[in-house]
Amino acid sequence: MSLIVQKYGGTSVGNIERIKAVAERVAKTIKEGNQVIVVVSAMAGETDKLIGLAQQISPNPGEREMDMLLSSGERVTSALTAMAIEALGHKARAFTGRQAGIITNTMHTKARIEKISGERIKKAIAEGYAVVIAGFQGVTEGESDVTTLGRGGSDLSAVAVAAATNADLCEIYTDVDGVYTTDPNIVPEARKLEKISYEEMLELASLGAKVLQTRSVEFAKKFKVPVVVRSSFNYNPGTLVVEEDKEMENVVVSGIAYDKNQTKITVVNVPDKPGIAARLFDTIAAANVVVDMIVQNISSDGKFADISFTVPKTDTKKALEVTEAVAKELGAERVDKREDTSKVSIIGVGMRTHSGVAAKMFQVLAGHNINIMMISTSEIKVSCVIDLKFTELAVRVLHEAFELAG
Amino acid sequence: MSLIVQKYGGTSVGNIERIKAVAERVAKTIKEGNQVIVVVSAMAGETDKLIGLAQQISPNPGEREMDMLLSSGERVTSALTAMAIEALGHKARAFTGRQAGIITNTMHTKARIEKISGERIKKAIAEGYAVVIAGFQGVTEGESDVTTLGRGGSDLSAVAVAAATNADLCEIYTDVDGVYTTDPNIVPEARKLEKISYEEMLELASLGAKVLQTRSVEFAKKFKVPVVVRSSFNYNPGTLVVEEDKEMENVVVSGIAYDKNQTKITVVNVPDKPGIAARLFDTIAAANVVVDMIVQNISSDGKFADISFTVPKTDTKKALEVTEAVAKELGAERVDKREDTSKVSIIGVGMRTHSGVAAKMFQVLAGHNINIMMISTSEIKVSCVIDLKFTELAVRVLHEAFELAG
Repeated sequence: MSLIVQKYGGTSVGNIERIKAVAERVAKTIKEGNQVIVVVSAMAGETDKLIGLAQQISPNPGEREMDMLLSSGERVTSALTAMAIEALGHKARAFTGRQAGIITNTMHTKARIEKISGERIKKAIAEGYAVVIAGFQGVTEGESDVTTLGRGGSDLSAVAVAAATNADLCEIYTDVDGVYTTDPNIVPEARKLEKISYEEMLELASLGAKVLQTRSVEFAKKFKVPVVVRSSFNYNPGTLVVEEDKEMENVVVSGIAYDKNQTKITVVNVPDKPGIAARLFDTIAAANVVVDMIVQNISSDGKFADISFTVPKTDTKKALEVTEAVAKELGAERVDKREDTSKVSIIGVGMRTHSGVAAKMFQVLAGHNINIMMISTSEIKVSCVIDLKFTELAVRVLHEAFELAG
Repeated sequence: MSLIVQKYGGTSVGNIERIKAVAERVAKTIKEGNQVIVVVSAMAGETDKLIGLAQQISPNPGEREMDMLLSSGERVTSALTAMAIEALGHKARAFTGRQAGIITNTMHTKARIEKISGERIKKAIAEGYAVVIAGFQGVTEGESDVTTLGRGGSDLSAVAVAAATNADLCEIYTDVDGVYTTDPNIVPEARKLEKISYEEMLELASLGAKVLQTRSVEFAKKFKVPVVVRSSFNYNPGTLVVEEDKEMENVVVSGIAYDKNQTKITVVNVPDKPGIAARLFDTIAAANVVVDMIVQNISSDGKFADISFTVPKTDTKKALEVTEAVAKELGAERVDKREDTSKVSIIGVGMRTHSGVAAKMFQVLAGHNINIMMISTSEIKVSCVIDLKFTELAVRVLHEAFELAG
């Protein structure tokens, strides 16, 4: 008998028919001899509706109250899902994040899970209940206030609960069949991956392939929780996210990701002296803007530097304001920005053991006259910032060059 | 400085504009030098919407999960109302029933409040916050499960919180101006009462004048909480519900109530022996049907009895099934039912000290050829079951006969 955690996203519980379909799948999993813990998101659109109500009341609603508001959506689906499972003749219990023992810090609207005291879940499972947990939410120590885990937080709830209960598998149900070598909307030949390592999934998730929330992958990696990403609309097998193995190392590139949500900002001709980068990025961080890539060049005479970096498009205004203030202070000539950029990345754990991968990427892009504005690399990833209009072309030619099609 | 509890019903928080109006009223109350605790219902229609969702899933959803589902509506309004108060520049905190310390028994969907450990409310009030509490909900001992208090439960939340915090006044905001001598839709001359005793309010509430939930009046009476019923749509003074005083005793009849939700069931020709009524009503109670009036007649030869009683119309089917089974067992001739009946009642604490009130009621009805099928009396009330179609006529002529118009 296995203990399986199944997480269903907003579209998977988007209406009563979908909730009944989820219950059918849970019942099937039970009949196959498993114990099941279900984690549910709010019905698709509910969270946005609640945010809309709050914004009609206040441009800047308090975050504690925001969490009380937003956490209601998952309570509704958890109760309805438990009822639907019971209607099929199986025992089921709905638990809030608090009742499931998900303890977080007090960072409202983006709280971090500190521990899970899953006693109540374990007891219910032992008593033969299917347990349905409201995702996305937790409670602060001492059970005083309700918190939420930020967008995509239900993925994290599921993985964390799987870790706390030593579950054998964590299934993330969504509206796609799994993780693909790239976006099938751009490359129809894109192939569904059978298996992918946590590291690769992490790079894919953080690079804009919105299948799994980044923190949930980090959590799965840390606690070695095997995760399957699959569709709740069919019974296809999905993609398994697990620890890296020998077989994976033979694949140099597993996938191509892209992110169109990038603004490139350049501080031009900063008089070069120690600490300029620190000064700049400290200030930007203090403004709560997350910087992605950073490149610094020194002029030929060694006296001036250009510092370029990328930020999410939504933060462009805030980032520019801060940057211009610091640039002035540092004596820079000017600040440039480019919003018509995107980031294209190749990912694969095989890069660790294969050389020349980055060079091949640059050649392929150059061969199609795609100019590279910035480059950033990690052990298992190479990213290039390019002109926005070449995004699809770049993804297609890289997918072909690295022979990712089925 | 007074501590005032204000309860706002579903229509009073029915949309964003209404919630903002509630916040304005709270702000006004604060500016007048008071501390305020707000208790809110779900937005009008929300609870029914949630019940509808549950019924689409299961004809008989689990009550524990039902409570988790239903309690979400009040969480939403409490969070939004706190945001709206803060948007007006006052400090506000939203609390769930659990956070407010409302501890109930485990009777899901109709839980009873066992105690209120209002420490967190008192602390927040002392720190200068307006406290907004999600009505209708509590939590079981040990804070394990969410419970709801049954329809109209937010009134009870408000009165109980007022009692627990020694509030000076509990204001119940609704969509009517207060308590009237009778339904103004039937009698346009109906007069708003300035003041009414707990006992009278209790009779009115339980007789179908749906202004205040019955249990909340019992609670207010027990803990001597002064309650005001008033409209959230204007600043009219409303009706004060307090302990009986001398002045009230001079008024023989304060109001006329009616209840169209009555089915009369008669068990005809039961062989009369000790214990038949006990046997019948024990069985009906075991089926969870609440019986209202009971009348028993013995035939002239003393050998047979007719037992008549009334039940809510919605329980007709269940009550009939049970009654027919018991009637057979007791050797009764047959069971009759009449669904076209209603109950009309006169209420007034003055009845205690004035005689002939019931006789006058019967004369008035007889004078208009309204046949009385059943009679029931209490210290401060006389009720008659009559033909449904005479309801409005009876209310009008009684209102006139007892000179209740302004």
